[in-house]
Order: sequence, then structure tokens, then C-alpha cells
Amino acid sequence: MADYEIFELRQVVLQCGLTLPQVKLAYKTYGELNATRDNVIVMPTFYGAQHAENETMMAAWRTLDPKKYFIIVPNMFGNGLSSSPSNTPPPFDRAVFPNITVYDNVVCQHRLVTEHLGVKQVRLVVGFSMGAQQTFQWGAMYPDLVQAIAPICGSARTSPHNYIFLEGLKAALAADAAFAEGWYQAPPIKGLRAFSRVYMGWVFSQDFFREQEYRKMGFASLEDSVRFLEGYFRRRDANDLLAMLWTWQHADISANIIYKGDFAAALRAIKAQAIVMPSETDLYFRVRDNELEVEQMPNAELRSLPSIWGHVAGLGVNPADNEFIDAALRELLAK
Amino acid sequence: MADYEIFELRQVVLQCGLTLPQVKLAYKTYGELNATRDNVIVMPTFYGAQHAENETMMAAWRTLDPKKYFIIVPNMFGNGLSSSPSNTPPPFDRAVFPNITVYDNVVCQHRLVTEHLGVKQVRLVVGFSMGAQQTFQWGAMYPDLVQAIAPICGSARTSPHNYIFLEGLKAALAADAAFAEGWYQAPPIKGLRAFSRVYMGWVFSQDFFREQEYRKMGFASLEDSVRFLEGYFRRRDANDLLAMLWTWQHADISANIIYKGDFAAALRAIKAQAIVMPSETDLYFRVRDNELEVEQMPNAELRSLPSIWGHVAGLGVNPADNEFIDAALRELLAK
Repeated sequence: MADYEIFELRQVVLQCGLTLPQVKLAYKTYGELNATRDNVIVMPTFYGAQHAENETMMAAWRTLDPKKYFIIVPNMFGNGLSSSPSNTPPPFDRAVFPNITVYDNVVCQHRLVTEHLGVKQVRLVVGFSMGAQQTFQWGAMYPDLVQAIAPICGSARTSPHNYIFLEGLKAALAADAAFAEGWYQAPPIKGLRAFSRVYMGWVFSQDFFREQEYRKMGFASLEDSVRFLEGYFRRRDANDLLAMLWTWQHADISANIIYKGDFAAALRAIKAQAIVMPSETDLYFRVRDNELEVEQMPNAELRSLPSIWGHVAGLGVNPADNEFIDAALRELLAK
Repeated sequence: MADYEIFELRQVVLQCGLTLPQVKLAYKTYGELNATRDNVIVMPTFYGAQHAENETMMAAWRTLDPKKYFIIVPNMFGNGLSSSPSNTPPPFDRAVFPNITVYDNVVCQHRLVTEHLGVKQVRLVVGFSMGAQQTFQWGAMYPDLVQAIAPICGSARTSPHNYIFLEGLKAALAADAAFAEGWYQAPPIKGLRAFSRVYMGWVFSQDFFREQEYRKMGFASLEDSVRFLEGYFRRRDANDLLAMLWTWQHADISANIIYKGDFAAALRAIKAQAIVMPSETDLYFRVRDNELEVEQMPNAELRSLPSIWGHVAGLGVNPADNEFIDAALRELLAK
């Protein structure tokens, strides 16, 4: 039995120009909307993740308490629960699933939150990694609706180097002939393993491995730790992974009809109180990129995670990082 | 016509336990040994490179002047000129070419330099990347022979993260079914492309791409720059690349009969005057690793390249970095 709901949208016109006749937005809510309707938190998902993964963060960042808040977790398109290559019927299935942007995601999430769930005010949008990219997009598109944002280990626009890193992942997966340009019958296992191994170099920091921090995650050896991501990605569909990867590569809060590519204008529009939290040792979502973004945001503070866990600092698994993030979220919610 | 010489060694016992009946060490010399025999520079090659690539550096670091010095460039095993999977007859060919260490390389290079070329004193060993790893090995094994060393963008031991990064490269190449576990008839092109694309994320820094420094290399676009490494690696043999990758992953100046894994002892043995030059933004050969090494070396200085060119800072292509390195080499040779 599914532990989530589906919000169905019809005739969704995507930025790429295609119209999807039927779109499924899978979501889960935690807690209850209070009488004054001012306890809403929106928490988008990250790359490859589903709402279940966000629950890890909710447990880690204790401020995100369903006893107090009404927390809405919309699943990102391509994640296998919301519309994705793996669950969409022809002619939009698998290798020909349309390119979906962060903007497309957030427009649909906004309809879920306002039309379907009747929310008039969002106390906080918070997300990790691609969840942070959606968080920035919420802030830029709905400044009057969103009171605070907390983008964690993610940027408002994907940097050129981040794009290149993702090119490597894509090439590693597609190098497997079993991938068959997306028309595989059985999962391209060698490609998924290569994808995971390439990713492993990026997701932690160099210092993380030198200091053998992986032992704190319960891995006895370096090789054990390499299997970590493989377990995560082997459960995913290859086309789904590539669909989300496209979304990631093209993330830019200004690449839409509202801001027409004026990135500074999109950042200036984010009126929400913001604490932007990159990890000091993240290898692809860099402090410097967030710094340049925060400079343009009227109500934002840059607060870098002093961590050697790289990108994973924001995943909700390292106690010290969890404390740091939780304190910032408490601060935003107290205001 | 070949522009290099071959030094042949017979019955070479490798660290892995295998004995190669016939080993080819390809080398090229530049300039002349002077009357006092004290103008020798040894300059090992880097990953995927041959002596021709070292010529770029000689031109860039003008102190390395063949009019003044006798410069010996030994080609690393696996590089396609010295003994390699691609040029060794059965039963040591292709996928079953033995694992060769940095130690094995340097033992053979030492025989070339002393037995074959009659050198009694080495003024300087200098190398970039894996060339730096061989440079450290020269210093640790032949402290009475080597007067100065200049390891550039390389470490005395491959760090755990560096190992993981290389695991990703290997998996990307091997994901191509055409690779056929090394028994391919035609080059595994998809695998080699994936290998190059993964590598591209690592070889420069994040800032390099943000600042569009690739324009200074003559690339008009980000995508142009991605083709850069593909051109380099597509010319190589896949098994050769994996042989050198194994050498790289297992580099450790103490992993031998002399130091028996005592890394600190091996570092302490390096009596040579050393200027160790990591690049501040190198993503796999890290400043921190060199720093920990230099602390143990009796006669060494850490001098980081203030560059956003990442690992490529040491390749001899960026004028500012070339000046920096050239000045250090001049200093070492002046003493």
C-alpha cells in the first residue's frame, strides 16, 4: 500500500514546449494544518530521493516537527513516484520523457499547495541539494507567499563545473551498451555501477576519506563505503536518473517567462528571510556560488556548514551538521 | 622514425611477484652530459603522457634548458612506448599485463640513468602529477644520488580520495561492453569518451569554469573544453590507461622492501633539497596531503601554486603558473 497521495494535473504545458496530458505529482503530508493556517512547511526532494528520504532529515532536524508543523513533501518529477520516464505511458515514456525544469516542478508544486491543499501562506521552504534548488525557485516565484527559505547544499543556478561533473555521470551510465539509449528491458547494471562509482568521488570531501569519517557511517573500509551509493542508485531507474540529471543541469531560477534570464533580478525578488547553508567542503555545490547569490538577495544570510562531510553534510546523517542546520531552521521559524 | 631510445632490461622481477623476461624502457635525452657530470635532470612522465608531453613543460619552465642541462625523460611503464599492455607479447599482453608499481618504474629508471647513461649524480628530479610521484620515489630510494627534487601537483602516496576518484574513471571505461574485460579488438570508444568526460570534472577547478578560464586555452565554449581531454585519451590504448591507473592508485614511496610500509621513514629519508608544489585548487592531489608529507621531510618546503587552474596548473600551459614553477626550479638549480 502506498504511503503517499497523488495530485493529478491535466494538460500541463512544460517549458520545453510539450504538453503532458496527465501529470502525477506524488506527495506526502506530515502533521496538520492549524486553525490559523500559518504552520506550513514545504520540503522538496533531492536527486534520486523520494519523500521517505526526507523523513531522515525531519528526524535529524528536530525543529521540523509534524506535531507542530504541517509539512508537505512534493516528490520531484523523475523520481519514480511523480511523473517519470519509468511510469509515464507512451508517447512520453522512458527515453522520450520530456525535459522537465525546476520551474516546471515548482509551478506544479505550487498548484498542489495552494489549489489542492488550500494553503495561503508558507512559513518555510527547506530543501537539500536539488531540494535547495527548488527552494530558491519557490522564493523567486512566490515572494508574497513564502516567508522563509533554507536552501541547504544547493544553488539557485547550476554552476558550469557542476554541469561538467554531471556530464561525467551521464557518460558513465550511457557507456553501458545495455542502456540501449534508454530502451533497455533489464536495468543497465554495469552503467549504474559506474554511475555510482563516479558519484562516490564527488559526494564526500577529500578530507572525509583521509580522516576515515566513513567509519562513523558504519563502513569498515573504503571499499565498503564505495558500495554505499551503489545501493542507493541501483534501486533507481536509469532513465529516471537521467531525467532528474537534466533538470539539475539546467537549474536556473531566472530561466523562465518571469525573469527572462535576468539572474540578478530573480535573486533580488526573493523577499523571504533566507539562511543559505552550503557545506565548506562540498565539491559541486560550492560556497562561492552561494556567496555570489546571497549578495544579491535582500534578506539573506550565508551560513556555511563547517564540515568535512562534503555534500553529505546536508543529508541529515552527520550529528554535528544536523545540529548546525537545526539551529538555523529554529531561528527562521522563531521569527 | 622514432625520436626516442629503448633501454632493454631482462628478467625484471616486479613487486607483484611476476618476472618479465624482457622490459623496454623508452627514453629520450635532451642536451649533453657536461665534463663534470653534474648537470643531470631526470624528468619522469605523467599519466597518459609520453616524453613529447614533457617537452611542453621544458618549453614552459625555461630553466629546464637543454643547452645547460642533460635532461633524461624516462617514459612510464604503461604509456605505450615503454613496456605496456599494448606492446608486450603474450603471456603478459593486454588484460593480463602485470601490475607495475611506481617503485618498479623507478628501479628500472635508476638502472637506465646509472648503468646505461653512466650518471653518478642527479642535480634534480622534477615531475608533474604521476611524474611527481616518481620524483618522490627517486628521492626516497636514492638519497645519496639525488640533490634536489621538485614534485609538482603530486603526492608521495595516493590519498584515499584520489583512489576513489580513479575507481570512478575505471568503472566508466569498463562499463562499455566493447571493452570486453580488456580483450577488445577495436577501441572501446564509448568507454574512452565516458572516461574523458568523468576526468574533465576533476582536472580543472570549479572556479576555472566559473571564470571561463578555458577561453584562455582557446576553447570558445564549455562544450569545446569538454572535448579537450577526449582528444588526449582517445589516442591512448584502454588497457594502457588502466595499467597506469593501477600504478597511480597504489603509489606509496614506502610500499617496498626498503621501507616496509613505514611512510614517515620513507619521507624522512628524502635528504634532497625539495620544493613541493601542489596547486591550491587541485581536486585530487591536495595541498593538505603534501603538507603532511613535507612536515616529515628534512629538507623540504611546501610552496603552493596560487592558481584556479586546478591540477592543470602544473601542466605547463598557464603562463602565471609557469612563472611560479620556473622560479622555484631556478632556485633549486642555483644552490
